[in-house]
Amino acid sequence: MMMTIRRTVLVVLMLSCACIGAVRAERPNIVIFLVDDMGVMDTSVPFLTDDDGTPKRYPLNDYYRTPNMERLAKQGIRFNNFYAMSVCSPTRISIMTGQNASRHQATNWINPEKNNRGPFGPTQWNWKGLKTSDVTLPRLLQGAGYRTIHVGKGHFGARAFEGAEPKNLGFDINVGGASFGAPGSYYGSQNYGLGTRRSHHAVPHLKKYHGSETFLTEALTIEAKPHVTAAVKDDAPFFLYMSHYAVHAPFNSDPRFAANYKDSGKPAPAQAFATLIEGMDKSLGDVLDHLNELGVAENTLVFFLGDNGSDAPLGHQHAVACAAPLRGKKGAHYEGGMRVPFIATWAKASGDNSNQKRLPIVADAIQIQQAAVYDLFPTILALTDLEPRKKHVVDGLRLDTLLTGEPDKKRAETFLMHYPHSPHRSDYFTCYRSGDWKVVYHYFPSKASEDSHYQLYNLAEDPFESKNLATGKPDQLRVMMRGLIASLEQTNALYPVDKTDGGAPLKPKLP
Amino acid sequence: MMMTIRRTVLVVLMLSCACIGAVRAERPNIVIFLVDDMGVMDTSVPFLTDDDGTPKRYPLNDYYRTPNMERLAKQGIRFNNFYAMSVCSPTRISIMTGQNASRHQATNWINPEKNNRGPFGPTQWNWKGLKTSDVTLPRLLQGAGYRTIHVGKGHFGARAFEGAEPKNLGFDINVGGASFGAPGSYYGSQNYGLGTRRSHHAVPHLKKYHGSETFLTEALTIEAKPHVTAAVKDDAPFFLYMSHYAVHAPFNSDPRFAANYKDSGKPAPAQAFATLIEGMDKSLGDVLDHLNELGVAENTLVFFLGDNGSDAPLGHQHAVACAAPLRGKKGAHYEGGMRVPFIATWAKASGDNSNQKRLPIVADAIQIQQAAVYDLFPTILALTDLEPRKKHVVDGLRLDTLLTGEPDKKRAETFLMHYPHSPHRSDYFTCYRSGDWKVVYHYFPSKASEDSHYQLYNLAEDPFESKNLATGKPDQLRVMMRGLIASLEQTNALYPVDKTDGGAPLKPKLP
Repeated sequence: MMMTIRRTVLVVLMLSCACIGAVRAERPNIVIFLVDDMGVMDTSVPFLTDDDGTPKRYPLNDYYRTPNMERLAKQGIRFNNFYAMSVCSPTRISIMTGQNASRHQATNWINPEKNNRGPFGPTQWNWKGLKTSDVTLPRLLQGAGYRTIHVGKGHFGARAFEGAEPKNLGFDINVGGASFGAPGSYYGSQNYGLGTRRSHHAVPHLKKYHGSETFLTEALTIEAKPHVTAAVKDDAPFFLYMSHYAVHAPFNSDPRFAANYKDSGKPAPAQAFATLIEGMDKSLGDVLDHLNELGVAENTLVFFLGDNGSDAPLGHQHAVACAAPLRGKKGAHYEGGMRVPFIATWAKASGDNSNQKRLPIVADAIQIQQAAVYDLFPTILALTDLEPRKKHVVDGLRLDTLLTGEPDKKRAETFLMHYPHSPHRSDYFTCYRSGDWKVVYHYFPSKASEDSHYQLYNLAEDPFESKNLATGKPDQLRVMMRGLIASLEQTNALYPVDKTDGGAPLKPKLP
Repeated sequence: MMMTIRRTVLVVLMLSCACIGAVRAERPNIVIFLVDDMGVMDTSVPFLTDDDGTPKRYPLNDYYRTPNMERLAKQGIRFNNFYAMSVCSPTRISIMTGQNASRHQATNWINPEKNNRGPFGPTQWNWKGLKTSDVTLPRLLQGAGYRTIHVGKGHFGARAFEGAEPKNLGFDINVGGASFGAPGSYYGSQNYGLGTRRSHHAVPHLKKYHGSETFLTEALTIEAKPHVTAAVKDDAPFFLYMSHYAVHAPFNSDPRFAANYKDSGKPAPAQAFATLIEGMDKSLGDVLDHLNELGVAENTLVFFLGDNGSDAPLGHQHAVACAAPLRGKKGAHYEGGMRVPFIATWAKASGDNSNQKRLPIVADAIQIQQAAVYDLFPTILALTDLEPRKKHVVDGLRLDTLLTGEPDKKRAETFLMHYPHSPHRSDYFTCYRSGDWKVVYHYFPSKASEDSHYQLYNLAEDPFESKNLATGKPDQLRVMMRGLIASLEQTNALYPVDKTDGGAPLKPKLP
């Protein structure tokens, strides 16, 4: 009986909404599968391509084992110019709000205990994190009747503030989410940190696994399933935010996969990192299987992504090492610091499903246009027929066209990454990509930036950032710096300051 | 006794505020002298320059008579790349909020009676206007103890809504401000419109001049003075928003000045337009004299500006005519449509005044860097030690450095003008300037746009926009279009739609 009433309401809605072409039976379920500190090269799926657009394998693709990502990539489309912020909280809050970090102003990773601005960071940055009153993706979905499920890492706000608890941000359920970013331990035998010297990072809500051999990644996967099952049983569409602590440090080796890397010749921490990757990949497979078992895979849209560039312990942060052939790693201003894997697909293909007809995602394809983490917000809202609140500015752009495999000429193809923090004076930077060009502005020139405020690269000709053109191409440098400065201003950016105790904001200068 | 207490409070404030170097006796008074529909060429003051930066007179400078603007220009600095929106309400609300029109979304002139979106305009644009709860410049100044005085044209909101009454927006006093933009009549003998067929635009609060020979511009000037006098007497700093209906149509000839133009050979409406200009200029002189008589000129900062390009009735809107040698006029996407006069100065120079020491404006100088109407908001707030509200995004940049005559390399030197309206399909456009380059995107290509979406100009080599480089410079066109698209997205722009009854938003495309 309830079913009949619900259908009637939907038909009325459908008839009154001119913008929907096809008949819709059900709103789609949404899964965001977010992996911490995973860069675009930390997988056996090749994301980079040859000049002619065919996927190209590099040695790291042969080192890592991610069969379930391979399965996902075969079903859907992957992006090879997908950008995240260079550290975690900024990306996570961008996913929640659809805003660039320079706008939401949580520009650094949140230290749960204090203002982590760095000695020259802006005092007023959003170090307390998201608030109950903020417009968030789960809040909007919750308001539309979605069951909103948070599993894993939160890191949305400092310990004493509202964002520490995902339930304050629109999640109905929270398993494992808290104010911190790194787990106390991945080991059940170590109670995920509780009672160790890393107790302040002990992962909550997992008491039943304490003292067991269950690895954290596995425990979170086991915990997620019944919440999804319950939503399906209750006939509620669901939003599963499956946010693994893996593959963030500490690099605890997952014994289930350690043998796969023992003869790799790589150092022990890099081997442990690979086991974290493989354990995360198993979780992905388990979640996909569960959706199939429940019979909801055809109506469930999966977004897989990393939250910042690789943190693989393989070399210096400015070298071609951790994300080779890309230069740099997590935190750095090079591509290896901000390019992440992104795969989107319906969990199971279907010719009949009306949501799939509405958003036909192409299989086994690579999209080469730029996109970024904040694009998820408007894409998901559009697909669920929700409007963002009028006063809430969204920097993201809908991915619909790109997901079908087509080019989208309405995208500016620009990306702004603003990082006015760091313990090291030399690491305060903003970078801006527009088309093939990328400029990096260093607030405090040093040897790390070759003693200049500016670095300029043409990523079409020099994808691995070996040749700084700042001196040789002064006109292009000025064009790019105008774009950088305008984007900062238009997104309400906060700037580094010139003294450790505060002082004047250091706005970037034209050369 | 009151005086003593107030001084004490100020001294305490001063000691507790590390950011103020010099001793400050009083907060400065602020005058914004805003002229409706006045472009950069509608004056005897030459704003344009030779290649070497010296002012260059053009025939229109010899046609108009503005001796008080000449006096003001001699005292202070004028800008020759100062941008306004191409019609009035967008600029007025940008001055109030510090935001680009694409962000505050009042992108067209407000029709007091209805949604003036135009057949293809976005339905949701901000046609109702400013609200009581909005953050505005007068509201912030009012909260800081300023006497906030509105005289003249309002045009901040439609008749049935809060913005129709300037007192709802932070003004203590309102003389003459209402929902409409054009006065019913400039003639006292016609009761400024009351009782005529233009009664719905009758200027309010001026009953005592009804039936008299007092021209509207004069009546508003007479009315402004006692409010300034009262603020000075009460020892309150004041913000005078002196917003003339002049020189907006109807082009009623001001008999006091008609003789000056009768032998000009220009058509009657153009002669009337010139009398409106000269009457406005007399008002400027009267206000400056009044500040001197009250002894507050040294502590009063005057900003003189127009609200959009010229509406002089001298030729076609796309021709080199109304703002010659600039191409275009009010409403058009050419420079003549959006460049306005801007002069900033202390009303009287003083070596002793602490506010003048803090902001030393150079005399008789021309600033060639770009600036725009929304820059007033952060400039005035900084000078009065006010912070904008945290959640209120400001697009404007402080003018301090430019006012001293120096270059400011921290400015992006970009300007976005978004106009998704018009009764004519061919007139929906966005234009974007970055450095020397300017691109115009036409949503509906037509003969007016040479049948292409794109127009591209290099304003350094071709300041009068005679040579469209869109076809010849495809790389530069793409760079500029990326900037245009990104700026629209970053300022939360609303787009034209593809059908007259609504339909899909038409976002600009890369070429």
